[in-house]
Amino acid sequence: MMNRIGILGAGQLARMLALAGYPLGCEFVFYEPKAAPCAANLGRFIEGSYTDEAQLKAFAEQVDVITYETENIPLEAATYLAELKPVFPNPKALAITQDRFKEKTFCQHHGIASTPFIAFESKEQLADCDDDFFPMIIKTRTQGYDGKHQYRLNSRDELNHWQQPEHQDGWIAEKVVRFSREVSIIGARARSGDIVFYDICENGHDQGILRQTRNNIDDPLFEQAKTLATQLMNALNYVGVLAVECFEVDGKLLVNEMAPRVHNSGHWTIDAAKTSQFENHVRAIMGWSLGASDSIARAIMTNFIGEKPPIQSLLVHDDIHVHDYGKEARPGRKIGHMTKVIR
Amino acid sequence: MMNRIGILGAGQLARMLALAGYPLGCEFVFYEPKAAPCAANLGRFIEGSYTDEAQLKAFAEQVDVITYETENIPLEAATYLAELKPVFPNPKALAITQDRFKEKTFCQHHGIASTPFIAFESKEQLADCDDDFFPMIIKTRTQGYDGKHQYRLNSRDELNHWQQPEHQDGWIAEKVVRFSREVSIIGARARSGDIVFYDICENGHDQGILRQTRNNIDDPLFEQAKTLATQLMNALNYVGVLAVECFEVDGKLLVNEMAPRVHNSGHWTIDAAKTSQFENHVRAIMGWSLGASDSIARAIMTNFIGEKPPIQSLLVHDDIHVHDYGKEARPGRKIGHMTKVIR
Repeated sequence: MMNRIGILGAGQLARMLALAGYPLGCEFVFYEPKAAPCAANLGRFIEGSYTDEAQLKAFAEQVDVITYETENIPLEAATYLAELKPVFPNPKALAITQDRFKEKTFCQHHGIASTPFIAFESKEQLADCDDDFFPMIIKTRTQGYDGKHQYRLNSRDELNHWQQPEHQDGWIAEKVVRFSREVSIIGARARSGDIVFYDICENGHDQGILRQTRNNIDDPLFEQAKTLATQLMNALNYVGVLAVECFEVDGKLLVNEMAPRVHNSGHWTIDAAKTSQFENHVRAIMGWSLGASDSIARAIMTNFIGEKPPIQSLLVHDDIHVHDYGKEARPGRKIGHMTKVIR
Repeated sequence: MMNRIGILGAGQLARMLALAGYPLGCEFVFYEPKAAPCAANLGRFIEGSYTDEAQLKAFAEQVDVITYETENIPLEAATYLAELKPVFPNPKALAITQDRFKEKTFCQHHGIASTPFIAFESKEQLADCDDDFFPMIIKTRTQGYDGKHQYRLNSRDELNHWQQPEHQDGWIAEKVVRFSREVSIIGARARSGDIVFYDICENGHDQGILRQTRNNIDDPLFEQAKTLATQLMNALNYVGVLAVECFEVDGKLLVNEMAPRVHNSGHWTIDAAKTSQFENHVRAIMGWSLGASDSIARAIMTNFIGEKPPIQSLLVHDDIHVHDYGKEARPGRKIGHMTKVIR
């Protein structure tokens, strides 16, 4: 048996990877610092710190290939593990995508447009930015997701009053752009270099958290999105699923951020694509062929955040597929989603 | 959390039930006498005998509702468990469907045609059967699946020479009928009494083992099949998925046997029905609404028996979905299946 997959992180993304991987004959070992995460029941679970090399080694010894469900893991952990077992996506891809400044610099280097940005350590360094850089969103370079550690500053005055918290890896200020749509392009790249893409995801965020996604079949920007994502994946020698979140501004895509993993905006693929993003991530990291990524229906995915409707109220609808992550409800926490499939 | 499902048996059917139930927020505890069955990694696993009441009690205490993946469990175990927690399908349905004689008598009682049969203890009791009862298939009343413990006797001479083995629950002789098709009708009945049916499954057996199934959309016998299965489910106050295997003889369905569980001939529903038989079984026993059972495509399901092709050779085909049960290959053993979806 050489189909043992280790996953760093054991939340809902790891859980859905396992649900997709078992039918392909894979087994799963999850590694996470927190006790009793929602994927723990779906395989072997190791509770361990990402800085504990002995535990990480014990984890690596139980698996054939390693992946991760989050970019918020220390790069050192991925680099250390990569000496022991294949890690996909590779640590270089992680290094770039886990740091917003490196990510944007990488895009720039490859001629891919992204939102204007300024990296800084201390907010004084922003003092001489142009007036038209406001409003801006300030984010930590690393960590932070679902709008955490983000600050919108509308004017120089607000900047002056902003209390900058401590953060070891520095900061980035991004100019707020007026966009007509938020979309993501999700692709999977195999070890062979083959790539498949899912239809453009149109995303609706609120307070920095993804609320709803639709797959937009025959999107006019599909080719543009595929071209930029292909360029990024090839440049990173990427293996696995990559999500690139973009803004549409005047018919052109600006990269907002990249996620080196299966992505919330691709959850609709479970119920409305020929092969889900989770199955294709497993296929990619195992060195197998990718599955067809065509949509089989239009779909609307809605997150359950902080609370969820009673399951019975959802199951009465024939066109809704429910995905409960088995997590305790807490404000702002993603605890499930549903996909409405329109045939 | 009241969504803890206990399953007696931990083979591939239990495994696929768990894979369908996790997205609905269910958790699973498996109970089986054999060590390291293929569902064990997908939840908690208790290795225990079906006659060990203390172990069965410990199992029942960990779950909210109990079901089974096989009718080959002692009725006493199900009856005992039903005193502790709800058991679906109910023990009466198990009692009837686990005994071929009771099953056929039950059909007869409800005016549902089945193949002609004679129950017997010792083969001498068959001595005065009509000549035209040959060829016959001899089966044990209980136990036996995939053609195990079955004997085809073509003539009275072969009967005379047949060495009858020991079997505690007695025997049944069934007249071999000349059928034009082997089909099954699979339905799910909710606690509310609502019923849904999947399209007719056309089955191909070889040496008593199911090899291939196709869903036959708009089958001319669909109504006839639904009527007989509805009658059976209502009479049993059935909750869960029931499979009824039939022969088509001159445009009429004769019941061959019933399975009080998800069924191999319904595996295509994972990839080609709106809601799989596994999800609908979970919904039924949890007391939830059933999902739509319509086919979304034509499908051909092929079992991997004793051996399986290399996964990479299958995954190159865009229209094939692979289901590997994670079982060791042994002659005659079902270790996986694939479904070809024709859109």
